[in-house]
Amino acid sequence: MERKILLTDCPDAKGLIAKITNICYKHQLNIIKNDEFVTHEQGRFFMRTVLEGRFNDETFLEDLDDALPEGSDRRLVPVGRKRLVILVTKESHCLGDILMKSYSGALDVDIAAVVGNYDTLAELTGKFGIPFHTVSHEGLSREAHEQQVRAIIDQYHPDYVVLAKYMRVLTPEFVAAYRRRIINIHHSFLPAFIGARPYQQAFDRGVKIIGATAHFVTDDLDEGPIIEQDVIHVNHAFSAEDMAMAGRDGERSVLSRALAHVLDERVFVYGNKTVVFK
Amino acid sequence: MERKILLTDCPDAKGLIAKITNICYKHQLNIIKNDEFVTHEQGRFFMRTVLEGRFNDETFLEDLDDALPEGSDRRLVPVGRKRLVILVTKESHCLGDILMKSYSGALDVDIAAVVGNYDTLAELTGKFGIPFHTVSHEGLSREAHEQQVRAIIDQYHPDYVVLAKYMRVLTPEFVAAYRRRIINIHHSFLPAFIGARPYQQAFDRGVKIIGATAHFVTDDLDEGPIIEQDVIHVNHAFSAEDMAMAGRDGERSVLSRALAHVLDERVFVYGNKTVVFK
Amino acid sequence: MERKILLTDCPDAKGLIAKITNICYKHQLNIIKNDEFVTHEQGRFFMRTVLEGRFNDETFLEDLDDALPEGSDRRLVPVGRKRLVILVTKESHCLGDILMKSYSGALDVDIAAVVGNYDTLAELTGKFGIPFHTVSHEGLSREAHEQQVRAIIDQYHPDYVVLAKYMRVLTPEFVAAYRRRIINIHHSFLPAFIGARPYQQAFDRGVKIIGATAHFVTDDLDEGPIIEQDVIHVNHAFSAEDMAMAGRDGERSVLSRALAHVLDERVFVYGNKTVVFK
Amino acid sequence: MERKILLTDCPDAKGLIAKITNICYKHQLNIIKNDEFVTHEQGRFFMRTVLEGRFNDETFLEDLDDALPEGSDRRLVPVGRKRLVILVTKESHCLGDILMKSYSGALDVDIAAVVGNYDTLAELTGKFGIPFHTVSHEGLSREAHEQQVRAIIDQYHPDYVVLAKYMRVLTPEFVAAYRRRIINIHHSFLPAFIGARPYQQAFDRGVKIIGATAHFVTDDLDEGPIIEQDVIHVNHAFSAEDMAMAGRDGERSVLSRALAHVLDERVFVYGNKTVVFK
Repeated sequence: MERKILLTDCPDAKGLIAKITNICYKHQLNIIKNDEFVTHEQGRFFMRTVLEGRFNDETFLEDLDDALPEGSDRRLVPVGRKRLVILVTKESHCLGDILMKSYSGALDVDIAAVVGNYDTLAELTGKFGIPFHTVSHEGLSREAHEQQVRAIIDQYHPDYVVLAKYMRVLTPEFVAAYRRRIINIHHSFLPAFIGARPYQQAFDRGVKIIGATAHFVTDDLDEGPIIEQDVIHVNHAFSAEDMAMAGRDGERSVLSRALAHVLDERVFVYGNKTVVFK
Repeated sequence: MERKILLTDCPDAKGLIAKITNICYKHQLNIIKNDEFVTHEQGRFFMRTVLEGRFNDETFLEDLDDALPEGSDRRLVPVGRKRLVILVTKESHCLGDILMKSYSGALDVDIAAVVGNYDTLAELTGKFGIPFHTVSHEGLSREAHEQQVRAIIDQYHPDYVVLAKYMRVLTPEFVAAYRRRIINIHHSFLPAFIGARPYQQAFDRGVKIIGATAHFVTDDLDEGPIIEQDVIHVNHAFSAEDMAMAGRDGERSVLSRALAHVLDERVFVYGNKTVVFK
Repeated sequence: MERKILLTDCPDAKGLIAKITNICYKHQLNIIKNDEFVTHEQGRFFMRTVLEGRFNDETFLEDLDDALPEGSDRRLVPVGRKRLVILVTKESHCLGDILMKSYSGALDVDIAAVVGNYDTLAELTGKFGIPFHTVSHEGLSREAHEQQVRAIIDQYHPDYVVLAKYMRVLTPEFVAAYRRRIINIHHSFLPAFIGARPYQQAFDRGVKIIGATAHFVTDDLDEGPIIEQDVIHVNHAFSAEDMAMAGRDGERSVLSRALAHVLDERVFVYGNKTVVFK
Repeated sequence: MERKILLTDCPDAKGLIAKITNICYKHQLNIIKNDEFVTHEQGRFFMRTVLEGRFNDETFLEDLDDALPEGSDRRLVPVGRKRLVILVTKESHCLGDILMKSYSGALDVDIAAVVGNYDTLAELTGKFGIPFHTVSHEGLSREAHEQQVRAIIDQYHPDYVVLAKYMRVLTPEFVAAYRRRIINIHHSFLPAFIGARPYQQAFDRGVKIIGATAHFVTDDLDEGPIIEQDVIHVNHAFSAEDMAMAGRDGERSVLSRALAHVLDERVFVYGNKTVVFK
């Protein structure tokens, strides 16, 4: 008995749930959990089906392809551990949280390597027996720096690249190389405080809440599809530094929750949005 | 084109989703939204299916009955306004919230009448043109008082009886007369602070959160199936009265949200628990 | 025995708390509650002191003026009911909440009148015996319309003007006429989604939280000092309309909480920020 | 220039704030932050005053002792790093969070040692270069086991003993040895689900929120003064194990926040409650 997840992303049509679940039934696959959603705008259908049984992937997918409308995308993925490469700069709280959750098994993930543009977090990474690569950006063009970073990433063949407070803007080439596979944590409740120093911006504006946003990275800075967001209440007594300190717990929680959703194949992307089946 | 909700509550079995959605498809009913859940313990299957199309209720339900295992319970209910009778004592915040939400259309509900054991809220109820019945409990046995209350309730044939801060304990006879149709708001995060004066209990214990719980009423005081809960943060500076004041916003929100779920047929009861499809 | 609140807003200096509390002690005024804050940037000192005793306002304030540095602002205000004029358009949830809280005593406030640019909410206002003035903006210049609105407001001499979903932009003249006395509820977590149709903007961006912000109105639209903010979690299944519906509970709560702070003299404004002593 | 915190805990009396702040002023100590509270019940006065300047502790405290009423307790403590010994069993999330926050400086704390009744967390502790002592309880009476644990604790002279998911009940002797210095994290929103297996209890009851409570340990199990609490929303789809998993993030956050308050001298205990100046 195996467990796999069927991910269906197709134009909406009548009877889709019946058709798909029928095929599961015919293949004697038990549905453990099923979630579906049809978009408000474009009439796109998304379904996530957790299945249990003995799989013949080939005939199962053939049956699905016969049943689904044109323009459909379907994947059958095994439940299980995914592989990450994590990019960092100097702040430890997000990396530390992923390291600890991976260590304890709270996140079912294999951290293949950590890459930093400073070596600040090499020691922490080393404690967990994970390779750390320092690729300084000093004296390098953005392109030349990214080329080195990509060469390291690619040797690990990760499922996802996680920007755990990686404080550099990526080129479109970098983004394109890992399309929908780069997850960033931004330290504001987007779309507020796009860009640099969001806590200073929040302090200057005098807000009563600060936040964090995990999103897929696209070419538009801080404009990618949002996976998870949360906020923390602050007040007039918080300096910008206090906000940054208080915000860290939010950042790491939001990034970890977003990662858990992505790793568990709960997230679909359409246009600039996500469907997240919780 | 009509919209109805199919509610299926049956022993778990292979292929249930396929069977049910097939019947929907055969009857040319479009599935607008589908949620299902199988309990962890007893292997019970719950499904809520929002359907759109032209319904032949009789043949549709016959087909379902042929397909579902023995011991199944299924209902096909039209989407639409439900009828309430609300029981109150003296506090206005929960009643006021339901009156206002009914007035604005935020809750799709017909408040048939309000019954109070004091006449404190008669004026407020009257503002909205809704009948108010005062049934004083003074000088009456619990049974005699309830008999009068029930006589009033029954003349309105409500779908649900809402206890909006009704500060009296009900007899098993009363509860049995409206089985799974009485919704109460308790002013604590149950199971903490069961019984009388929960805010005073909370103050005495020195808690940092207070809460509210909406639940179906059963024979065991404050032990019925929980529909919705929420909390509010407090601190040492709150007196018991401050907690009560702060708690009111939570009470009315939790009760309103619970009502919205129930009225929208999102709630199944099994044993002493609920399944709430949000 | 009376209760009054001393509000001190002055340049920071050594010994301010000692000096002020000494004067209170000398006047045999008991300090019920004291809060103070010094700004991070400009070295401004804010203190709110709740006092109980027999007051000789004149000599007490003279003593304070002798002790406080130049450029100080101090006010001694009696605890008690404030007077509001509320401006509305068509949506009832914020007005309804203030009406209900005023009715129940949860907000200690005298709603002198409600002014609408439509008559939609006249009936609701009338239920509570409060005058409603319809001032249609149709066929009028912004200035001419505001002149009529101001004439009505001014005949009631309100302490504060509350924009309870008043969907019109105010001119600088209007804002200046009630400086730091106009409170608005904006239906987003500012500074995200400034301007029109924030829920549609939120839907288009695919955010996972929506929010509400209560702020003092200044000349810059949606840029005034923030008093209170909160958020509500949403997901991909929410349409823009669903967000608007879900957001209403947040809007009214945030506005009511902001009002409670302001009415209780807990809010200082400095620059574009607030100090809120909770 | 030094920074110290004055903690005053005394019977309420007129003019206390004036008297204390005058003495500060006389000693040319600048008040950076001041918080005070008078209990609702017993008329006890608590004040926390963050001071900056050149301290003559002896004369300063003498002046205070002359001014304060009989039965007063006052302490002048330097701002700075505190020393912890952490007790654990097998779960890593709370220990891991404290280790990581200590490593990054988010908690200003010196973890002197970790003691476990199993060796499960020895490896994790070792990564951070901190001594781990395994004291198996097997084959030992409770008293004999505690004697060994206490011997280890005492050799490190900790300011506080933290029970980071230490799954053993303590004897009154142990509790007395570290009065008001033992901080525990309980995995429920106390007073709900006192005792063993709170997540299973929560599952059985069908609650919609789960929680965590950090409290000082007293002789009465799970009845000590509460420092911090928070909750996490769950639903019918959560098994008891899912609740435990989801609850971990809450547990570690609540414990870390409680620790931060305690280490920063923000917490007073009176009777079975706390005053926490945030």
